[in-house]
Amino acid sequence: MAWARKCIARSSLLTKHICRLPGRQVQQCIWAREWHGFGIRHHDEMRRWLPSFTNTRWNHASGVEPAEKLNPSFIIEQLSSDNDNKVLKVTWSDGSVSRYNTSWLRMNCQCSACKQPDSGQTLVTVTDFPAQLTIHSSSHQHNSSSIAINFNEESNHQCTLPVSWLKQHSYSPADLEVKARLRDVKYLDSAIGSFRCEDVRNSEGDLFEWLDHLNTFGITILKNVPVCPESVTKVANMIGPVTETLYGHTFDVQTEDKPINVAYSSVGLGFHVDLAYYESPPGLQLLHCLQFDDMVLGGESIFLDGFCIAEEFREKFPHHFETLTRVPATFQKFHFERANPAAYIYQRPHINVNRTGQITAVTWSPPFEGPLAVPEEDVEPYYEAYREFSTQLETSNKVVSYRLQQGDCVIFNNRRIFHGRMQFQQNGGVRHLKGCYVNIDDFRSKVQYLHEKRGLGQLAKRVGNQCMF
Amino acid sequence: MAWARKCIARSSLLTKHICRLPGRQVQQCIWAREWHGFGIRHHDEMRRWLPSFTNTRWNHASGVEPAEKLNPSFIIEQLSSDNDNKVLKVTWSDGSVSRYNTSWLRMNCQCSACKQPDSGQTLVTVTDFPAQLTIHSSSHQHNSSSIAINFNEESNHQCTLPVSWLKQHSYSPADLEVKARLRDVKYLDSAIGSFRCEDVRNSEGDLFEWLDHLNTFGITILKNVPVCPESVTKVANMIGPVTETLYGHTFDVQTEDKPINVAYSSVGLGFHVDLAYYESPPGLQLLHCLQFDDMVLGGESIFLDGFCIAEEFREKFPHHFETLTRVPATFQKFHFERANPAAYIYQRPHINVNRTGQITAVTWSPPFEGPLAVPEEDVEPYYEAYREFSTQLETSNKVVSYRLQQGDCVIFNNRRIFHGRMQFQQNGGVRHLKGCYVNIDDFRSKVQYLHEKRGLGQLAKRVGNQCMF
Repeated sequence: MAWARKCIARSSLLTKHICRLPGRQVQQCIWAREWHGFGIRHHDEMRRWLPSFTNTRWNHASGVEPAEKLNPSFIIEQLSSDNDNKVLKVTWSDGSVSRYNTSWLRMNCQCSACKQPDSGQTLVTVTDFPAQLTIHSSSHQHNSSSIAINFNEESNHQCTLPVSWLKQHSYSPADLEVKARLRDVKYLDSAIGSFRCEDVRNSEGDLFEWLDHLNTFGITILKNVPVCPESVTKVANMIGPVTETLYGHTFDVQTEDKPINVAYSSVGLGFHVDLAYYESPPGLQLLHCLQFDDMVLGGESIFLDGFCIAEEFREKFPHHFETLTRVPATFQKFHFERANPAAYIYQRPHINVNRTGQITAVTWSPPFEGPLAVPEEDVEPYYEAYREFSTQLETSNKVVSYRLQQGDCVIFNNRRIFHGRMQFQQNGGVRHLKGCYVNIDDFRSKVQYLHEKRGLGQLAKRVGNQCMF
Repeated sequence: MAWARKCIARSSLLTKHICRLPGRQVQQCIWAREWHGFGIRHHDEMRRWLPSFTNTRWNHASGVEPAEKLNPSFIIEQLSSDNDNKVLKVTWSDGSVSRYNTSWLRMNCQCSACKQPDSGQTLVTVTDFPAQLTIHSSSHQHNSSSIAINFNEESNHQCTLPVSWLKQHSYSPADLEVKARLRDVKYLDSAIGSFRCEDVRNSEGDLFEWLDHLNTFGITILKNVPVCPESVTKVANMIGPVTETLYGHTFDVQTEDKPINVAYSSVGLGFHVDLAYYESPPGLQLLHCLQFDDMVLGGESIFLDGFCIAEEFREKFPHHFETLTRVPATFQKFHFERANPAAYIYQRPHINVNRTGQITAVTWSPPFEGPLAVPEEDVEPYYEAYREFSTQLETSNKVVSYRLQQGDCVIFNNRRIFHGRMQFQQNGGVRHLKGCYVNIDDFRSKVQYLHEKRGLGQLAKRVGNQCMF
């Protein structure tokens, strides 16, 4: 109950920040720390976690690593001002330098009136303080965990920032580069790592190992998943809620004697990502093998690391790579003769990069491409680049194939690992998979949380969700 | 059953397209027309739609308007070749000219071997035909609905394209501009359009009017929604499946005497979009008013059209506008002390534009902003632009406020209409809303489908999902 009392006490701090709605009655209108939800109903569940986090309070709010654990030399050597006192310059004990603009410092003040300690949500808005802030004084007591900054233009507020937090969020060129490198993934090569369902279900350590592997390599197999229709949802829920799409909550990939759909037949399927015509195509795809009889010939699942192929492509064909990041393709699904008619269309490049050229997403889905709709001068370059990328996929020596066994559940990052299926012959047997999806951000959140809970604290590896980090 | 037989017959056409996986046993590996699902199980439902679409078969496949209905003058005046026979030049009877590159024509061939007539999925891949195609001949019989093209390098295939389809997908500068204009929306001004629940539930015409209004203005009120907890999901399901988020399937916004969360208290909430830390924040937000007692003072819902504000901002502060499209903000939610701990982080600009500068998304969520992580030279410009945009919101005369009544359900585009809430005093009364979300692409699909079913056929108005169209 002490925890609940603390929450209530904090909420009163909110009333000091108001925004006005001119032309109307003045209203107190406060940025919410939480719009709804919070999950606070589950007190027991919370108490279970709380003790282990007591000593890393700031970490929860900021969402990055507890730096002290990673690097005990995060100690301030010197504080000074630069650029007419509009920049705080911090010299660290290892000789590195970070520079922080005054607006940035003020917006990120971590005092409890400006930032909610538990959730890390910002309570201060930019219009709450003067536009031009200059440093009056900055101080850092030896062995203190925080620095304090006073601004000339805001005498009634002292800006407080934990030293470790400051280092972790340094945006010096060197620190931005380190953060970018932390996101590098290992490419899928010859083998798919496998884990046992009972292990990850019973041990949070194993759960973390499994999801970290999935995040790093983009794919894992979970063995011994109970052979029943509900299992795939249960596996998904160890990560996040199932994402319902136009294909429903779960779906069946099942061969029929008289197929009315190619997916229910035995033909092969080329490499693709699913649902490329959504703004956020599914992050994780789960396929649980309910039956795959021995007499069925072929039917192996095939995978190819789209990030790896794209990097190779950039190396070999820089000009084509640039074209595929620039000219938007059309992805669409128009199909009216179904229970819930579909009319999806989305225009995006095959490859997205961030401001420093790092790949943030790859999208490849030939059967769902609509007519290119770009100026004429982009058309031929697009098809030339497209043809070459397509050839790279078809001739890659990095294809990994795997024949699912009954009870296997393959889980892969649909945004990164292109998937397909070999043709097969039934020979009187059955191949039946049950699948579902999990949102990419829910997956990333789970991995990030487990990282931080275990004190590893790196940013989750890139997942292909176009996030510019 | 004739329909089912036709489907089965078509599937055999697939076997002519194969891709090979070198270094392995050669396998037939065919781009799927459908990976799974299809909804074909619901034959009765399909038959209900089929008759009305019989004469617009191509339309379903391509996903655009049946042009003949819109413009009877879509008649070809002349066919010729240009650019060493690598471009087909079509002169239309109204004097306009469209130019089509040979690769584009070949990739978009609509013969039943290259494009599945029902779903419009592409069966041909770019590596199935030569890289350099030149036109051998092109023909168009008077009054025929299609043109035929033969290429010098591919003697065994005749490329077939319906005339109306060709016109609809013209990528001439003038036609690209017309398509862009079709996407313009009307800005939310003083009033929120309302509809009656019983009407939209019982009449597809009313359903269309409602969703078209929602798509055009970004917000509607549905009146007389039965006051029970299940209603909001039922309303959502008239549009698409509910999107489950970290807040669950549905959520309650309810005042409590001793609130442990600001959302359950009576303070105001500033303008924001929900869940900005997801790659695809919720498209539609539904808030159904289960109780709002007369004695409660205040508590009006407030709305502001983010697209409108952003366009005004571009007009007034072009330099700041550019900054907000270029420098990525950080959105995050880190909150571990909850049943399902959250560690979401996403870096994106506040405003996204496409290649021609049209706004494709706006994202604004001050309480969920994390530390800016960009090079130093971008920091001050970012805060200057941010400050000005924030001021524009706070001083806008376009704020619309509405006091929900019991049974009202407000539905708004969370990607476009910023929302908030006035502070209120309970006075012993209760204010209780129940909410849920629908994915932005599912919403757009529904609107697009109803447009086409009614023969209106324009591209759905922009919805803020970053689609570059």
